[in-house]
Amino acid sequence: RIRAEIERSLPAALGRLARFADVFREQVRRTLVVPRARRRFWDRVFEGRVGELALAGDEIAARRELIRLLDGFRSEAPSAGMVHLVGAGPGDPDLLTLKAHRLLQRADVLVYDRLVSDEILSMARRDAERVYVGKRRANHCVPQDEINDRLVALARAGKSVVRLKGGDPFVFGRGGEEVEALVKAGVAVEVVPGVTAALGCASSAGIPLTHRDHAQACILVTGHLKNGTVDLDWKMLSRPRQTVVIYMGAGALPQIVAQLISYGLPASTPIALIENGTTDRERRIVGTLATIDRQVQRTVLTGPTLCMVGAVVGLAVERGQEFNFESRMGL
Amino acid sequence: RIRAEIERSLPAALGRLARFADVFREQVRRTLVVPRARRRFWDRVFEGRVGELALAGDEIAARRELIRLLDGFRSEAPSAGMVHLVGAGPGDPDLLTLKAHRLLQRADVLVYDRLVSDEILSMARRDAERVYVGKRRANHCVPQDEINDRLVALARAGKSVVRLKGGDPFVFGRGGEEVEALVKAGVAVEVVPGVTAALGCASSAGIPLTHRDHAQACILVTGHLKNGTVDLDWKMLSRPRQTVVIYMGAGALPQIVAQLISYGLPASTPIALIENGTTDRERRIVGTLATIDRQVQRTVLTGPTLCMVGAVVGLAVERGQEFNFESRMGL
Repeated sequence: RIRAEIERSLPAALGRLARFADVFREQVRRTLVVPRARRRFWDRVFEGRVGELALAGDEIAARRELIRLLDGFRSEAPSAGMVHLVGAGPGDPDLLTLKAHRLLQRADVLVYDRLVSDEILSMARRDAERVYVGKRRANHCVPQDEINDRLVALARAGKSVVRLKGGDPFVFGRGGEEVEALVKAGVAVEVVPGVTAALGCASSAGIPLTHRDHAQACILVTGHLKNGTVDLDWKMLSRPRQTVVIYMGAGALPQIVAQLISYGLPASTPIALIENGTTDRERRIVGTLATIDRQVQRTVLTGPTLCMVGAVVGLAVERGQEFNFESRMGL
Repeated sequence: RIRAEIERSLPAALGRLARFADVFREQVRRTLVVPRARRRFWDRVFEGRVGELALAGDEIAARRELIRLLDGFRSEAPSAGMVHLVGAGPGDPDLLTLKAHRLLQRADVLVYDRLVSDEILSMARRDAERVYVGKRRANHCVPQDEINDRLVALARAGKSVVRLKGGDPFVFGRGGEEVEALVKAGVAVEVVPGVTAALGCASSAGIPLTHRDHAQACILVTGHLKNGTVDLDWKMLSRPRQTVVIYMGAGALPQIVAQLISYGLPASTPIALIENGTTDRERRIVGTLATIDRQVQRTVLTGPTLCMVGAVVGLAVERGQEFNFESRMGL
């Protein structure tokens, strides 16, 4: 209703303002090369005296005022750039934080890797520059040093940079190294936390990471194959009454299972694999240390996969189908 | 500009519609006792034929149509209730997820405890019912069983319930127990993850929880005093090359420090205490296992406090003032 009313009543004045602004668009783009300054300029145009005059139909006075404003902006120093290291959450765009969402919509440049989905990227301004620095296992597209250098260069060029990282920037994201490089280069940096995959997958699968009766601690580790072996503190991971979450690499599962058993975890310990957690493509395989290898051989897991081990996984199994049905149906 | 235009052009038609709806407000409230049904009803009124007629000024036809619609709604079964177990994040309302924010704005009832701030509660609809079930240490206001029963009863009454929990519902929030109770009672439940305090405080203090050179694992535990002692797996917590995050109880620090040292961590290991992390009242005390006790004696920590132990804490110390200055200044 309201929208219809608005659409009926506004076109005349707004159309006038839009046509007026359009005439200057190219000139402003050439004069103010820093996108942030450009945005600030247009905000001033629309909210200030220029807009008022243009809306009122006094185009000559509006032009004069706009040129004066543009001159003022030109003489200002370009604003200092900054990097926001932002957690993009576990996959579901709805699990971005309000802050991440707002920063996305304001950024001049997005620097992202493969764990960040197109859906999330599409939440940024259309004209924001997008820089892909993704890496695949054993096939590093862009070495970390180059990413660091790139971030520094962009910020020094006066850009507002959002460095998007899957999950949380400080959990297995090498965010610490990027912050170090930026601080060393004198670039302002802010870190915005995100829902890490362990939390996202736990909620989605109905697995409480801690539980009074079953798990007093939760351990996050990353289990990628390196020279054919997974190098982890197995003794620590095999202790009772805790939940182990392994940010996993494909192919590492057989070794993980074998080591956990050889260090003392019962073969009946529940284990869950969650691929593409929290997204529409989420798949879960739930079993025990004794059965999971065989179960996985029937499927091919290609997306990012998380492995959860511990008694709490059993709680989700008991609940089975009843859990989270609304979110599964996309309600 | 646009707002001014709107305000100038809309009042006539909208005022008519608002006055029309106001006449029926009481009657609708008495007829449809379930707030969700009421909201659905008004949506239908404003978006459908009733609104069209009222806007057009045909009040008699609009009344007739509204009564017919209301009768239809009355005969429908009340909609089934549901509980959303929602993580409210580490404190800063800006760190709510988009999903949590949306659910807050739709909920009929909020059930929350003391870790959820007024700022976050104020994001809900004004007319949502608010139920406080907070507990303070050693002074349980509402036992967990009663909270469970309450959630079940509210859902059975057809309400859309948001059970807000500080941080993430499945990390030290007893969310697992609430899900179990709800599923057992046949109540639909969805869990929405949140940024747990460990992630929020890490970002805010510039402490990466994992780091290639310093920490391959991150362990989350809760360290509350029980009968004068803190019961944790000290052997596991004292291993090298990992970050330990303790969701802490006041008074537990001296024992935590003593145990970590007696189980083998060097007294020079960096440690940080972060009180009210991510909020305006955030305070940080950073030192080593050897010094922290003395440092804390000069301050009184009353808010929720997180303790981080490990080499990564040292990285933040080196950076000191340079880090995160923008967010500290509230920019």
